[in-house]
Amino acid sequence: MKKCQSFFFISQIAYLCRMKAEIITIGDEILIGQTIDTNSAWLGEQLHLQGIRLNRIITISDAHQEIIRAVDESFSRADLVLMTGGLGPTQDDVTKETLAQYFGTTLVTHPEVLRGIQDFFASRGREMLEVNNKQADLPKDADILMNMRGTAMGMWFERNGKVLISMPGVPYEMKGIMRDHGFEKIRNYFKTEPIIHKTVLTQGLGESFLAEMISDWETSLRNEGLSLAYLPSPGMVKLRISGFASNGNAEAIEERIDTYITELRRRIPENAFGSDKQTLAEVVGSLLQERNQTLAVAESCTGGLIAHLITSIAGSSAHFLGGVVAYSNESKVNLLGVSAQTLASNGAVSEKVVKEMANGARDKFNATFAVATSGIAGPDGGTDEKPVGTVWISLAGPKKTVAKEFNFGKSRSRNVSISALAALNWLRNEIFNRELE
Amino acid sequence: MKKCQSFFFISQIAYLCRMKAEIITIGDEILIGQTIDTNSAWLGEQLHLQGIRLNRIITISDAHQEIIRAVDESFSRADLVLMTGGLGPTQDDVTKETLAQYFGTTLVTHPEVLRGIQDFFASRGREMLEVNNKQADLPKDADILMNMRGTAMGMWFERNGKVLISMPGVPYEMKGIMRDHGFEKIRNYFKTEPIIHKTVLTQGLGESFLAEMISDWETSLRNEGLSLAYLPSPGMVKLRISGFASNGNAEAIEERIDTYITELRRRIPENAFGSDKQTLAEVVGSLLQERNQTLAVAESCTGGLIAHLITSIAGSSAHFLGGVVAYSNESKVNLLGVSAQTLASNGAVSEKVVKEMANGARDKFNATFAVATSGIAGPDGGTDEKPVGTVWISLAGPKKTVAKEFNFGKSRSRNVSISALAALNWLRNEIFNRELE
Repeated sequence: MKKCQSFFFISQIAYLCRMKAEIITIGDEILIGQTIDTNSAWLGEQLHLQGIRLNRIITISDAHQEIIRAVDESFSRADLVLMTGGLGPTQDDVTKETLAQYFGTTLVTHPEVLRGIQDFFASRGREMLEVNNKQADLPKDADILMNMRGTAMGMWFERNGKVLISMPGVPYEMKGIMRDHGFEKIRNYFKTEPIIHKTVLTQGLGESFLAEMISDWETSLRNEGLSLAYLPSPGMVKLRISGFASNGNAEAIEERIDTYITELRRRIPENAFGSDKQTLAEVVGSLLQERNQTLAVAESCTGGLIAHLITSIAGSSAHFLGGVVAYSNESKVNLLGVSAQTLASNGAVSEKVVKEMANGARDKFNATFAVATSGIAGPDGGTDEKPVGTVWISLAGPKKTVAKEFNFGKSRSRNVSISALAALNWLRNEIFNRELE
Repeated sequence: MKKCQSFFFISQIAYLCRMKAEIITIGDEILIGQTIDTNSAWLGEQLHLQGIRLNRIITISDAHQEIIRAVDESFSRADLVLMTGGLGPTQDDVTKETLAQYFGTTLVTHPEVLRGIQDFFASRGREMLEVNNKQADLPKDADILMNMRGTAMGMWFERNGKVLISMPGVPYEMKGIMRDHGFEKIRNYFKTEPIIHKTVLTQGLGESFLAEMISDWETSLRNEGLSLAYLPSPGMVKLRISGFASNGNAEAIEERIDTYITELRRRIPENAFGSDKQTLAEVVGSLLQERNQTLAVAESCTGGLIAHLITSIAGSSAHFLGGVVAYSNESKVNLLGVSAQTLASNGAVSEKVVKEMANGARDKFNATFAVATSGIAGPDGGTDEKPVGTVWISLAGPKKTVAKEFNFGKSRSRNVSISALAALNWLRNEIFNRELE
């Protein structure tokens, strides 16, 4: 309906576009804190990525009057209302009836939806109940957004150039409906300009430090009309680059973004480890797979987290042979072959011991590479010489074994997770550079 | 002001109390999906636990007019408004000025707050900036709720018997302010009746199955005016029992709840593993500590998660000796002493192999107990005989080694986490029952 355009400025997005959206979340389980509303965060991010301004998120209970009031209010402020929840087959869920009434329509059985629901149950070998038949009763004057992952359909209502989309609250059903139909329909209806986003994942540089290192690159990128967002989490910073693809110049914009990404990776090759939804464990796994190499781990302070991250990736058994969680000194000696003498004279958290752990793991598992960690995760156990947060990481390869000392601060859980990421990223670099072979 | 009372009914809480609350969350980072609003979930749960009905959660951007409008609307519907965010020292944050104007007061320097902020910086050895001085400028006619964990104070405003509390958005600062001052001030001001809650943690029974098993217990509990909530998560169900302590009978109510908890634990001793904020790893750790016993693990399908859960508990090095993540068959043989013959004739996912893994871990680490897992986590690797989700768990002790087969379904991540919890809970039972010694 409206032609919509947004512009990006330094460090924040200014939407010149007048199109606004609101989210209405229906659910008592959210109001009583039993469920955290992750749907709104996901929808908020997706709208933002499409250049649509989210004005408000409102959570209300599953009650007729509350729904009517909230929709009225949101329509008075916004062009697009995304509603989640309240579409279950039980009597508690009044959203469908309420919306049908609000938009002056009635519920009728949609035969193609009924067949879809019957197929859904049949394909899972589950018996279909009478209440599930009712889920095919949907508003006559709404577009049905088929739910391929469940039995509550999405519904698209229009009034005076404004749109309301109602979806079930189950996150993966809601996301499926938006990805399958919702976003495209929104783009077509509101004629929004597509925005292109690419994310570069970095490890090992703090947000401020990174920003300083790449400030001229960032300035040049912004001068070309692209925008940049820093998204930090413990041990990592994601950099998201965005650009508008107006007048069908999507390919040109994509190329321009890629040029900046190539330049960024050239500048911080040791830190930029991947893109978009990748994980470090996945990137390390692919590298090993490509080269037909294998990995083993020897973990003390990380206590199994590195193995857990690696084995969370399906198919990891092809390159990951296993590991030893050597929490006691005795197990470092017995399972990894660390010398009792080295332990006694250097202590477990030391360069020599961590190297012997890495060598031991490599030998015992007969792996190409091994990574080892030994540190003081906290909150107790620190000394003046080795304060809480001291972590030694070692990498062993066919030709060389190396080690580095780190300190990641005082929180036990941060220490453990940052150590695991630092170890995986260093390993990635060494596999790539082939300096241990 | 108002005398407030609530009543609990079967499966849902009906608040006869007319007192209502709303939450206003301020933050562009939430609207663009960069941050998930966990504050509202926590506040929602806490209000619910105090018998106060949460009517709405509203998220808005950090803009003067938006804040005024949202407060006006919330005050028209509710007696208590909890506001988080927008209190930083930079110019983006306009909440403090906006609220001072809204409540017809001005900002003045609060000397005791200024001293508090100076102490905060001094104790951390950090330099105090000019902008931080401004954080001691606070509304003249508000009660200050001191923030002991940061520099943005909480503020309590009153108007016509209604209350607005403004707090910083950093979760642990917000929670600290509510715990230190907020909830008590709310109870006193609105004269709410205290509610007593206790939670029993269970592992290994699905929600519906558990509900059926304890239905007479639940009925009797409800007939006594207590209420029950089922809070499920993968592999676990938490049971929260609540009761009103009117007329100062808190002790009597607590005793009544304890009687029901004792009866519940008597009925499902193998499943009820702990209470309130405990974790399974913590309960297992305490049991081992008490008995001066030690533990080792041998993980295949759980890939390090059991070790990670155990070592997440500070002090676990006292009873946890370590583990082997034996992802390859070769590592099962070389590191755990599983017989190559057993592996060849039974396959890795079998009773015999998992028992040999447990025995091997117990021997190699010289531990009192060992737990082992071997299964097909998925998504690939299943056969007709051993479908995806098949998991063998074994426990080895001084006198006996036992094993059981489970199937936890098709999702890799669910399989891994449910297997880890099932293994830890079974271990807890065997340590407790001393049947392996």
